[in-house]
Amino acid sequence: MGVTIAIDCMGGDHGPVVTVPAALSFLRSHPDANVILVGREEAIQPHLGTAVSEFGTRIRLHPASEVVTMDDPPAIAMRNKKDSSMRVAMDLVKAGEACAAVSAGNTGALMAISRFVLKTLPGVDRPAIATVLPSMKGHTYVLDLGANVDCTAEHLLQFGVMGSSLVAAIEHKERPSVGLLNIGEEAIKGNDVVKEAGELLRASGLNFYGNVEGDDIYEGTVDVVVCDGFVGNVALKTSEGLAQMLGAFLKQEFSRSLLTKLMAVVALPVLKRFKKRVDHRLYNGAPLLGLRGVVLKSHGSADAVAFGNALSRAADAASNRLIERISERMANMNEVKA
Amino acid sequence: MGVTIAIDCMGGDHGPVVTVPAALSFLRSHPDANVILVGREEAIQPHLGTAVSEFGTRIRLHPASEVVTMDDPPAIAMRNKKDSSMRVAMDLVKAGEACAAVSAGNTGALMAISRFVLKTLPGVDRPAIATVLPSMKGHTYVLDLGANVDCTAEHLLQFGVMGSSLVAAIEHKERPSVGLLNIGEEAIKGNDVVKEAGELLRASGLNFYGNVEGDDIYEGTVDVVVCDGFVGNVALKTSEGLAQMLGAFLKQEFSRSLLTKLMAVVALPVLKRFKKRVDHRLYNGAPLLGLRGVVLKSHGSADAVAFGNALSRAADAASNRLIERISERMANMNEVKA
Repeated sequence: MGVTIAIDCMGGDHGPVVTVPAALSFLRSHPDANVILVGREEAIQPHLGTAVSEFGTRIRLHPASEVVTMDDPPAIAMRNKKDSSMRVAMDLVKAGEACAAVSAGNTGALMAISRFVLKTLPGVDRPAIATVLPSMKGHTYVLDLGANVDCTAEHLLQFGVMGSSLVAAIEHKERPSVGLLNIGEEAIKGNDVVKEAGELLRASGLNFYGNVEGDDIYEGTVDVVVCDGFVGNVALKTSEGLAQMLGAFLKQEFSRSLLTKLMAVVALPVLKRFKKRVDHRLYNGAPLLGLRGVVLKSHGSADAVAFGNALSRAADAASNRLIERISERMANMNEVKA
Repeated sequence: MGVTIAIDCMGGDHGPVVTVPAALSFLRSHPDANVILVGREEAIQPHLGTAVSEFGTRIRLHPASEVVTMDDPPAIAMRNKKDSSMRVAMDLVKAGEACAAVSAGNTGALMAISRFVLKTLPGVDRPAIATVLPSMKGHTYVLDLGANVDCTAEHLLQFGVMGSSLVAAIEHKERPSVGLLNIGEEAIKGNDVVKEAGELLRASGLNFYGNVEGDDIYEGTVDVVVCDGFVGNVALKTSEGLAQMLGAFLKQEFSRSLLTKLMAVVALPVLKRFKKRVDHRLYNGAPLLGLRGVVLKSHGSADAVAFGNALSRAADAASNRLIERISERMANMNEVKA
């Protein structure tokens, strides 16, 4: 029997217009998988088409009357909206009816609700948000991306363990290399927390590479890059901004005149391949790690392709026993320490 | 009378092979400027050609027997190499013989030596390293880039004042907008230092925009982005890595087959314009701010074009009274507080 994904259909900038078609494509490309569409029936129904006859019991609608908005403070979303699509999707994971929950909604609320409903795994102080980015050599996984602003060395160590388990599960690499994000100035090699985290990681039994710098993320120096949430968030957003600017500049240069537009037409197949290769939609779906259940955060502005990738990633994580892997590694870690 | 730049000719990965030709081009394009070439005579001389007859008194060689290497710890470079080209260039600024010093050498050593020789301006606790990056709207100045790993809110405020003065001097904008780099997660809006820095900046009389995120650097939301050195360094290095990867991918796609290579030939003029527009050499030359003298750090791997840009930037900063502007703004700030 395949995995079942609980989908918060109401989350994100677009809601069911995006989430429902993505769910249907996902069912088509994953013949073993099932989905539970969570949200307001009247909002979801119009986008189902002939899905019920097509997929039968593989698709099911689970009503939830409320919606967590992007502006809801996490505490309010958690306490006052107990019948939100986000919360109900999480309850389905908790109850064992679904193996994973995917939401494009408010990150803070998603983190608070998943932490409250699912709880953290033994040995994990704080869940983290991870993402995968393209690199010269394949993929690099980076965590944390903003869940944890002030981190201790111990937290960074836990991120290393969780990130390593994630790569083991998703990329089928048994001993992924782990790097600690630091700065390369000759004068000063990181602050005290980072220095201490380096020592903990070195002693951890993980395949610890040592310090890496920002450019190593895209060079693919290591499989997992560990950093605190502030730094990780800045690195990710800066990358998004730079990619957007470069794309806009390239477009501008090709639209400068009739001649350059003709050149663009000639070069189009190459430009398209290039674009496809670095398409950020491929990288949508950031796992929340350290919880007793698989939860993925989709970008709020995700389209159906991007949201579909988050669903596939959730199915991958669940079927490759992500949670069990993290628990085992955390337990081993604590044995080594004890 | 024009500005005089003291050039550490021995610094960087290439030394005089790059620094001397860059100095000569600089003299050609800046008919008012003078240079003092600092370093080992026997290393500099072979690259001078007919420069002495061409430029007469505008060029002068100042001997220095030692060289700071990339591996020298800053303290060692400062204490044990008193006749290094880096140190002697700084001494020339201190003595008023030059208006600015430019070096492609070891950043930590450059910071330590310039701080020791020139001293900081009144009101400045720690000098910072700034850089300029391209944006959708022009340029964004970012500081600090790695000189200061652990910053207080007060330090971030000082960076705002210094960055604002830099833009006023170089871009001739009297009230540049200043943004504080933060993260956008709904749950958590930055750590305590950043929150406090926001309050100080808001009360500072600077044209403070508020919080910005990583992508705002390239969107050009503000003229100056303020952050601590760890975060700034990661943002810069991450950008370098991403740009490099995207360039490599584009090249790979165009070299895939004979057909795509032909397409590349057709598109070449556009690709060249694009490349020129985002050429990182244009952005070489990072000012060390908060010192009693103009000091610019060139990228260690800079070629003659890039190093020449650092020289031009130094001339600009000196002739637009950068140091006086920072002093004045710092003094005003302290008056407001008193």
